[in-house]
Amino acid sequence: MKKASTSPIPARGPADHEVRDQIIAAATEHFSRYGYEKTTVSDLAKAIGFSKAYIYKFFESKQAIGEMICANCLHEIESDVRAAVAEAGLPPEKLRRMFKVSTEASLRLFFQDRKLYDIAASAATENWQAVQAYEARVQNLLQDVLQEGRQSGDFERKTPLDETAMAIYLVMRPYLNPLLLQYNLDTTELAPAQLSSLVLRSLSP
Amino acid sequence: MKKASTSPIPARGPADHEVRDQIIAAATEHFSRYGYEKTTVSDLAKAIGFSKAYIYKFFESKQAIGEMICANCLHEIESDVRAAVAEAGLPPEKLRRMFKVSTEASLRLFFQDRKLYDIAASAATENWQAVQAYEARVQNLLQDVLQEGRQSGDFERKTPLDETAMAIYLVMRPYLNPLLLQYNLDTTELAPAQLSSLVLRSLSP
Repeated sequence: MKKASTSPIPARGPADHEVRDQIIAAATEHFSRYGYEKTTVSDLAKAIGFSKAYIYKFFESKQAIGEMICANCLHEIESDVRAAVAEAGLPPEKLRRMFKVSTEASLRLFFQDRKLYDIAASAATENWQAVQAYEARVQNLLQDVLQEGRQSGDFERKTPLDETAMAIYLVMRPYLNPLLLQYNLDTTELAPAQLSSLVLRSLSP
Repeated sequence: MKKASTSPIPARGPADHEVRDQIIAAATEHFSRYGYEKTTVSDLAKAIGFSKAYIYKFFESKQAIGEMICANCLHEIESDVRAAVAEAGLPPEKLRRMFKVSTEASLRLFFQDRKLYDIAASAATENWQAVQAYEARVQNLLQDVLQEGRQSGDFERKTPLDETAMAIYLVMRPYLNPLLLQYNLDTTELAPAQLSSLVLRSLSP
């Protein structure tokens, strides 16, 4: 076993966390106006009024900044979905809300003014850590709802839970993933209701 | 009522149909090597050894050539799917085959060497006539299979047929549409089986 390191942690000013937040806020604003792909850290530094070196003290790369913005965005979608699920009564209604609200929140954050689409597209294409973590959390939430429905007797219990959850996630994915969602924009009005009805039929005991 | 026109139909040499086929074959070969988007009718004429004017005698635009190639490609996918459905025994198995074979045939035609992806992507983006017709035919085939399963007692009959068919089509679509399929390449191995199992659970009487 390794001994716990006793070397002192270098003292960091209390302002670090605030500076990071400040950079993220300015970068979100800047990227949403000029695009993520086209902007360099130099552009960003100039726009914020910081030196490039100062930004690199807090973020090791443009992608690290993008990842933080992306993670914030995905957390916002997730918290909308969790709130809608918590608010709904029975498990079937929770599942319906999950389809509906995840589509709406994804549309709003990725496509309203195409604000964050650029970053979300890079994140999805390159399968950033923030995306993987988000997908895992959505799958867990889905499993929780399924589990609850199995316990309440609303959902069948013959099919292995993993299998059910994965198949339903595949059905939801075209409306969660921004790269897929961009080609589904003409179906987002009706698809969540039609697909959740199909899924609920598949879950009937 | 209009009287039938008695004006003589202009005589067309019997070679017309053969020339069209020859242009399509050469264009398919050329596009698959150099891409559809980047190639002009002039490039194509030069490569085939025809004059540009001669090609325009048979096709009014590059898109008209692309549409014909695309239609051929979609017909090939469709006939693979129809053969697989015809070969399968019971309606549930027909549905499974439909998911599996449509995904495999789309993958092969759109992505093997990315041969026809370029044309298929334009066709899907611009919603060409050939694509609309293909989608309608696949939806009809799906309805036929569902209808057969309802008659045999394999599938439930409570949900309106239109609603069932549309929801199932939405589940299949990410594996049929080349723009969506390009982002699903890592799930094509398992997804058709997982999704058709889910769909079959949703259809149980």
